[in-house]
Amino acid sequence: MKSLKVALCQMLIQKDKILNIEKAKKMILKASKKGAKIIALPEMFNCPYNNKCFRSYSESYLEGETINTLSNIAKEEKVYLIGGSIPEKDEKENIYNTCFIFDDNGKIIGKHRKIHLFDINIKDKIKFMESEVLSRGNDITIVDTKWGKIGVAICYDIRFPELIRIMSLKGAKMVFIPAAFNMTTGPAHWSTLFKSRALDNQIYMFGISPARNIESSYKAYGHSIISNPWGNIINEMDEKEGILIEDINLNLIEEIREQLPLIKHRRTDIYKLSVL
Amino acid sequence: MKSLKVALCQMLIQKDKILNIEKAKKMILKASKKGAKIIALPEMFNCPYNNKCFRSYSESYLEGETINTLSNIAKEEKVYLIGGSIPEKDEKENIYNTCFIFDDNGKIIGKHRKIHLFDINIKDKIKFMESEVLSRGNDITIVDTKWGKIGVAICYDIRFPELIRIMSLKGAKMVFIPAAFNMTTGPAHWSTLFKSRALDNQIYMFGISPARNIESSYKAYGHSIISNPWGNIINEMDEKEGILIEDINLNLIEEIREQLPLIKHRRTDIYKLSVL
Repeated sequence: MKSLKVALCQMLIQKDKILNIEKAKKMILKASKKGAKIIALPEMFNCPYNNKCFRSYSESYLEGETINTLSNIAKEEKVYLIGGSIPEKDEKENIYNTCFIFDDNGKIIGKHRKIHLFDINIKDKIKFMESEVLSRGNDITIVDTKWGKIGVAICYDIRFPELIRIMSLKGAKMVFIPAAFNMTTGPAHWSTLFKSRALDNQIYMFGISPARNIESSYKAYGHSIISNPWGNIINEMDEKEGILIEDINLNLIEEIREQLPLIKHRRTDIYKLSVL
Repeated sequence: MKSLKVALCQMLIQKDKILNIEKAKKMILKASKKGAKIIALPEMFNCPYNNKCFRSYSESYLEGETINTLSNIAKEEKVYLIGGSIPEKDEKENIYNTCFIFDDNGKIIGKHRKIHLFDINIKDKIKFMESEVLSRGNDITIVDTKWGKIGVAICYDIRFPELIRIMSLKGAKMVFIPAAFNMTTGPAHWSTLFKSRALDNQIYMFGISPARNIESSYKAYGHSIISNPWGNIINEMDEKEGILIEDINLNLIEEIREQLPLIKHRRTDIYKLSVL
């Protein structure tokens, strides 16, 4: 029960929504055939990462073709799915950057709406303002699975250490981050963020990026990544499409926490991190 | 006022307390002659890093020879001193791992008693239990200087993201960490911690280690380090004795926070970090 095969699907995302869904399905099937029990997709995997696309590609969880496809395949393959993210439309026509999470019966056991929207403006390098189109989620997302609690956050969310700390304090042993870092922030910050969140919280961190599409207006960094509770990067891809499959030793978390009891040594009499 | 020369003195620490104090003085003088305005020493710079030594090397801040020496040299050279740390004895004979901080008049403007004690036990690698001898401090330390607010913490304190986050939220633009990481935790975690704390909080981080003394029971990693608010390591030493001097551009903090407004984007309606 403690060793677990996890797959990260670093998809090349294209303009055609149906083709993207088909590609995701194909990659999930492949990962499942290789024995993966938790399979994760990248951020905005059915839609170009572009403010102009989010509304027209969006779907409601009540009638969404993307969500239906993921639910069916999770059930058929008996795998957990961390459904990357898609543009989700609510009943008021607000659009969110949302990750749907499915258990191995195809049931939605959680959804994470990105809570920190990515608004960045680095002169001559990268400008992107999600908040022009997207609405913010307001909930921290932790789901129960047969391998323990799993935290899910999306891309920019990882930059806020409070969020990942809260997840680990609430018992998450693995945190999945579907994420499309770019060619400025990716080389500069991607691996440091995954290393340090894993190290500080003594958990496994998983980053799932789209493959780099040089024809896209937004060039994703790629480099889907897994870091372990000692803060080591145990695997990292390059920028190309592919599936990263890794055996995860969940016992390592307790071993490391026994040797270096960071969580226990927090000075909760001096500082307090609370969820409002 | 915004550009500033900072020096980190990576001292080789020996058994003789007087020699250690003399060495510190010599290095401070050298750094001051090169124009450094803030000069920092390593953790336990007057004493071997060994539980058996802390009590006998300890001194009270009322009558301490180490503290007097630092105060005098700060005043003579007109420099700020981040006094690494020394074993400090209080009126009840408790011993603390304490950093005294001096302004350029030689006045003590703050002292930090290490608040997270280093108790580690990694089989066949490193065992050290500070709590067997030392008492814990209870205060977060931020001092006002002519270059803005400076946070000071000691070694193991850096592992707790809450602490450095609080310092930055309270306005610290530079955080100094006198620290003696070892040959297990140093190669594994040192640079990641300095990079990530700087990156998450968009501040400068300074780590000041003793040089590695191969004759000592505790072998320090060395590698005194400076990381900038973009999360880049702008300088890092090797394990040998020496002084790292660097010009610090404090304007970079605001520039980066404008481009990537991490502090502003915190979801303080969802989570809250408070000082008790």
